[in-house]
Amino acid sequence: MTTDAAPSISSETGSSPSANIGVVGMAVMGSNLARNLASREGNTVAVYNRSPERTRTLVSEHPEAGFVPSESIADFAASLQKPRTAIIMVQAGAGTDAVINQLVDAFEPGDIIVDGGNALFTDTRRREAAVRETGIHFVGCGISGGEEGALNGPSLMPGGTAESYETLGPILRSIAAVAEGEPCVTHVGTDGAGHFVKMIHNGIEYADMQLIAEAYDLIRRGTGKSPAEIAEIFAEWNKGELESYLIEITAEVLRQVDADTQLPLVDVILDAAGAKGTGAWTVQTALDLGVPVSGIAEAVFARSVSSKLEQRAASRTLPGPDGFQVEDADGFVEDVRLALYASKIIAYSQGFDAIIAGAEQYGWDIKKGDIAAIWRAGCIIRARFLNRITEAYAEDPNLVALVTAPFFRDAVDTAQAAWRRVVVQAAQAGIPAPAFSSSLSYYDGLRAERLPAALIQGQRDFFGAHTYKRVDRDGVFHTDWSGDRTERSA
Amino acid sequence: MTTDAAPSISSETGSSPSANIGVVGMAVMGSNLARNLASREGNTVAVYNRSPERTRTLVSEHPEAGFVPSESIADFAASLQKPRTAIIMVQAGAGTDAVINQLVDAFEPGDIIVDGGNALFTDTRRREAAVRETGIHFVGCGISGGEEGALNGPSLMPGGTAESYETLGPILRSIAAVAEGEPCVTHVGTDGAGHFVKMIHNGIEYADMQLIAEAYDLIRRGTGKSPAEIAEIFAEWNKGELESYLIEITAEVLRQVDADTQLPLVDVILDAAGAKGTGAWTVQTALDLGVPVSGIAEAVFARSVSSKLEQRAASRTLPGPDGFQVEDADGFVEDVRLALYASKIIAYSQGFDAIIAGAEQYGWDIKKGDIAAIWRAGCIIRARFLNRITEAYAEDPNLVALVTAPFFRDAVDTAQAAWRRVVVQAAQAGIPAPAFSSSLSYYDGLRAERLPAALIQGQRDFFGAHTYKRVDRDGVFHTDWSGDRTERSA
Repeated sequence: MTTDAAPSISSETGSSPSANIGVVGMAVMGSNLARNLASREGNTVAVYNRSPERTRTLVSEHPEAGFVPSESIADFAASLQKPRTAIIMVQAGAGTDAVINQLVDAFEPGDIIVDGGNALFTDTRRREAAVRETGIHFVGCGISGGEEGALNGPSLMPGGTAESYETLGPILRSIAAVAEGEPCVTHVGTDGAGHFVKMIHNGIEYADMQLIAEAYDLIRRGTGKSPAEIAEIFAEWNKGELESYLIEITAEVLRQVDADTQLPLVDVILDAAGAKGTGAWTVQTALDLGVPVSGIAEAVFARSVSSKLEQRAASRTLPGPDGFQVEDADGFVEDVRLALYASKIIAYSQGFDAIIAGAEQYGWDIKKGDIAAIWRAGCIIRARFLNRITEAYAEDPNLVALVTAPFFRDAVDTAQAAWRRVVVQAAQAGIPAPAFSSSLSYYDGLRAERLPAALIQGQRDFFGAHTYKRVDRDGVFHTDWSGDRTERSA
Repeated sequence: MTTDAAPSISSETGSSPSANIGVVGMAVMGSNLARNLASREGNTVAVYNRSPERTRTLVSEHPEAGFVPSESIADFAASLQKPRTAIIMVQAGAGTDAVINQLVDAFEPGDIIVDGGNALFTDTRRREAAVRETGIHFVGCGISGGEEGALNGPSLMPGGTAESYETLGPILRSIAAVAEGEPCVTHVGTDGAGHFVKMIHNGIEYADMQLIAEAYDLIRRGTGKSPAEIAEIFAEWNKGELESYLIEITAEVLRQVDADTQLPLVDVILDAAGAKGTGAWTVQTALDLGVPVSGIAEAVFARSVSSKLEQRAASRTLPGPDGFQVEDADGFVEDVRLALYASKIIAYSQGFDAIIAGAEQYGWDIKKGDIAAIWRAGCIIRARFLNRITEAYAEDPNLVALVTAPFFRDAVDTAQAAWRRVVVQAAQAGIPAPAFSSSLSYYDGLRAERLPAALIQGQRDFFGAHTYKRVDRDGVFHTDWSGDRTERSA
């Protein structure tokens, strides 16, 4: 498939297959992952890209990698030892299906096709079912950590068959981030389990970021501290129980001064947050599963509110308080820290509820503690905190809500007076804190002895004969609201 | 298609078609709608049900209706004048597709098939596109008001072509609920517009019900008043600006005493709220459209929290305040009323945002004021309040956010001090008020001069090179965070 004009990069045709792993797609994520693979002992990496220029550039820039390049899928397949194992790193969507089809044509039963893109887990389930028919394994693998993680060590969340993981596992372990000596990869579960868990990871990331943003906003507006001063607060927080990558980079962002204006960069950036969709997927999926992920939902919605520039312009003169000035700045900062910590516990508790519900719905045997463990390094939400989650599930694998684990229960106990004060001050001062206050409402809903849901059931029975259950005996009942108002079994 | 053994109900075969409208599906909603149609001047109603027993029963129980029954789709089609117009009233889902296919086979170009079930608007769009190929019109029609509304006058939200509405409109007008002399029906827009708007109606209904439930809970726990006493408060509220069907029936439900226990029925009903899915659809659709419908989302999530009985049992001992006792009960009740009113304005503002976004996405010419007008009677969220929405859009058809209309702006201005006090008291007392507090956060987010979304953009640029915009000039920028931290155009 090489032309006479261009120098051929395909030296493998005809020779024996030499690569134990291949990567398809040489954009930044794909080439970084290929370089990461090539840098690890025992790996020889086949590479292929639809347009061969990219492959040639990568190969010439990284002679140390010993890549085995191909300019056709057939040559690429021929360059792989059996079982052939290839990781697709292309833009999620229709392109993924096209590449899968090409690989299915070139591969044989027992070979392994891995999709390392950000696919929706239902697409992965569909693809896995289709590819399985051919006897080839299809593995959807969540990869977190961005470009830098791909190069130096991502957190990896593969799904697919246990059989495919026997071949794939050692390869993934060789490139994964390492947390306390353990590579951040585990076989999450079958078919789409890996992409499902990656989606929840991203949902939690949305909540985490929104909570940090609310903390920053409250401190700034309540104390008048500058972004640089608040950067120091976050740097300090990063030494304690909030220690995490997102807290760390928040300090970096807040410290940054714009070269043009000499203003803090955060004041120069347009306050309209973008989104790539995985947060919305998490909420949509949780709604299908009947799991309340209100913290994640409020984070997704807060981004959409911020990007409605026309509505915000028209709403700027809506009446409300003009902010506030706290008297005890240090005390307030500590309150905010505790509110952030408690709200973060709720976000994770809701996220793990979604994982549990997904596992039940789709028949995945997901080890919750292992998921927390592989998020400790490589990925965006990496945090010291995750060890506590692993411990909680080690202590009680059937924990019905993460927040009820003794460690987290105690943490919320310590934090909650401060948490409530912060929510109260935000409401009084007219400062939006949707994720802080939603998390608190959720917490109070969970622990309520009785909820007014009983009234909702009464309303539903009144207007739609939807029936209700009783607290004192089994059965389903309906009151004849439009008649004599007697109750009957329904 | 009649048998010798059973008495035939099909007397039409061979005679000239006599019905101007037909109904397929004789369950409660279908037979009530058929009776409603038959009761109006000028209508002759053809009826058909897959199992003929139901049709026979209906016809024999309601001789006054003058139904034209059939026992086959072919006879049913033959009994209809051209253009044939039939309303399908079957359980939404696969059954709908089967009936549509049968009618398409029996009907001719120019005829009209109406789906009166609660179909997801994307299904309606798919069906409309498929049926259109045959030259037959397909109309998805939202019908609200439950069994009682179907019989005596529902609120009707038809989509489909303008051409089909020329035939269908007068028939629907004849049966619709009437508000201030106007029938509650309008041609919402093409293809799935009717079912879309019905879905948003249901989403708003979820929010409305949750807000009422929170108001009840706060009053009960804050003042110690009994359900019967609170019923009187709702009855009183129903004379003012909150006047609505849901407030009215809340009083009825709270007044109800359980015959067995002599306890208030609301204390005997299990506090686990059910859901049929249209609330979740609304949130999922709004997420696709990028519209923050946080009030509706919190309402849907509050129902799921309530139904997690195992989690709630494990969480009951989580630490928190033990409720509260207000000093000024009357003042508190009035605060709660105002909080409910303000939060309700937010729920509608968000719901209409979703309608606007849907109309833009799918090319529907939806008249917002007309939608509010047809919700004034027949449907579950019928309320005096809706006139104000119609007026707001009459005054400014391009209103960018309902809450910014002078009337609603003033209403929120009047209410907001009370609204904030209620959210504060709920947070302090440990009483969940997710919809009240989420609505307030949304309001404060909308009117914020600056949002911490700028920090989120900085974080996203740091870990994922997602770029950001600046407040002071056009373009898209990236800071080289891992390098020398200079900014470049991206």
